[in-house]
Amino acid sequence: MDFHSVYQRYRAQLEQVEYILHDRAASQQTVLAEASQQLLDAGGKRLRPLFALICGTTQQLHEDSDDRVSKLAAALELTHMATLVHDDVIDQAALRRGRPTVRSEYGNLAAMYTGDFLFARAIQLLAEVDNPEVHREMSLGMVRLCQGEIEQIRDFYNWDQSIKTYLRRIERKTALLIALSCALGARMSAASEQDISALRLFGHYTGMAFQIVDDILDFVGSQEVVGKPVGGDLRQGNLTLPALVAAQTPNVGRRLRGLIHEGMNQDDVLEAVSLVLDTQGLHVARSLAQRYLDKALTVLTRVSDERVQKELSVLTQFVAERSF
Amino acid sequence: MDFHSVYQRYRAQLEQVEYILHDRAASQQTVLAEASQQLLDAGGKRLRPLFALICGTTQQLHEDSDDRVSKLAAALELTHMATLVHDDVIDQAALRRGRPTVRSEYGNLAAMYTGDFLFARAIQLLAEVDNPEVHREMSLGMVRLCQGEIEQIRDFYNWDQSIKTYLRRIERKTALLIALSCALGARMSAASEQDISALRLFGHYTGMAFQIVDDILDFVGSQEVVGKPVGGDLRQGNLTLPALVAAQTPNVGRRLRGLIHEGMNQDDVLEAVSLVLDTQGLHVARSLAQRYLDKALTVLTRVSDERVQKELSVLTQFVAERSF
Repeated sequence: MDFHSVYQRYRAQLEQVEYILHDRAASQQTVLAEASQQLLDAGGKRLRPLFALICGTTQQLHEDSDDRVSKLAAALELTHMATLVHDDVIDQAALRRGRPTVRSEYGNLAAMYTGDFLFARAIQLLAEVDNPEVHREMSLGMVRLCQGEIEQIRDFYNWDQSIKTYLRRIERKTALLIALSCALGARMSAASEQDISALRLFGHYTGMAFQIVDDILDFVGSQEVVGKPVGGDLRQGNLTLPALVAAQTPNVGRRLRGLIHEGMNQDDVLEAVSLVLDTQGLHVARSLAQRYLDKALTVLTRVSDERVQKELSVLTQFVAERSF
Repeated sequence: MDFHSVYQRYRAQLEQVEYILHDRAASQQTVLAEASQQLLDAGGKRLRPLFALICGTTQQLHEDSDDRVSKLAAALELTHMATLVHDDVIDQAALRRGRPTVRSEYGNLAAMYTGDFLFARAIQLLAEVDNPEVHREMSLGMVRLCQGEIEQIRDFYNWDQSIKTYLRRIERKTALLIALSCALGARMSAASEQDISALRLFGHYTGMAFQIVDDILDFVGSQEVVGKPVGGDLRQGNLTLPALVAAQTPNVGRRLRGLIHEGMNQDDVLEAVSLVLDTQGLHVARSLAQRYLDKALTVLTRVSDERVQKELSVLTQFVAERSF
């Protein structure tokens, strides 16, 4: 089984999720509708929906469960999209996935309200999913997500942050929602508490690996592949694992700290990127991503359904190995 | 019965709501905790909670209904607060209720995430209220609220907007959440569908009257009383009913349009305020507020519980008559 055959197996349900996303992004309000539509059209891998759909098939007890799992999957993606739009306000980002961001096209205020709107649409879908436990877990997740987002502002340009701070930040920024996608998908299919708990942990480790890989790609990816220019994180003062490791390297650390500050120019950023590439930063990050990936695959063996095990393992390895 | 005796009757429950608000505004994240705490300390009339509490006592069927109505009331106030924080980002407002806004003290980005956080906290409370119908109505309300917020950006400085546009904007901005406070409070107490529907309409008319009164006070209130400087709406390009009526007045209209544009100075604003005061703007606004108030009181007679009728009528008249 390869990555594409997993996608293929869930094609019909992913199309249903896509339909729900487009349906819910609609608004009589033109700016909202256009901005939301543009976000949807920019694509993305729909990973969170896919995780929810796979985990939502561990057991199928209800006739309408497919429909409700699709709604949950769409709610997860909308929540993710809402955080992306608000992150772009923060990042002053002009491009995401190779396209202009809502912020650059419509302005910060419209981006803020587009995020709010998508967030409200996610809540609306959750209401239709109508599962109190799912609602409770999801709303707690949203609270923690917001806490994580504000932490990233505090950590911008802060070279004194520890790697632990970085890990806690990406846990809230990425791992949390992927863990929820797996756990809540499973919960919708009335999986056992053991399975739900193993899948939540699997999602957590997977999310950690994904974000570290993403942060690596920001140093080695090209605009054509990743859809945004290299060094973007440094440019916005977002200090990720490779940079934090590089900053602890003798001779390099001081120079790096001196380059990355508010008001730096594009040459400074490119020089900083090349400094980081000269250190063990990427190597350390790759090793840690691999360790999280290993943990994810190990915990997966505790899941009772073998097909779910297999599909998740294929998907996770494919995504995590993008940068290897 | 007067205004204060109504507040007095709900004092214990309002204190419980206040406790929940402080409890939920807490966060390990310092900026979020401080910003939220500051918003709470700034006070406010807690009108939405009070409406929900009053309407939540039409029938009391469940032993724990008090507790759940308080949670609903707190969720409504948190939603309101979230929109205030995001509005202040829009408004570039430095003061609200006589205190520095989150935006002016912590910056736009922190204000955006504080709003998101409060919004997520509201959703979390809704999950605990655990009433699918309440969740459904509330999430739809949130979607419409966001649509209303983005419309106000479009309408800034737009002298060609109709009074109908203004009314639709304040319906979403204010009347909607007050209508929900009444309807959902009633729903929590297992009121009849007739009562719920009458209370929703009552809340709608009341909210319309409140917002028009608020918009009047922006022209005639003083910073000491209202907590923000006079002419604030014009300063941010928010064209309210008195200004829109004034703009249709021969001789005044053209001058007014010439004064209010982006980049105007404080003298322009004060001159514009005095121009509006010379027209029928305030008179027309007062008449319309009175008409909404009359409609609210009329629809109230359809509510089966006389005590609820009486309390709501006292409360509504007190607030709506602030500017008369």
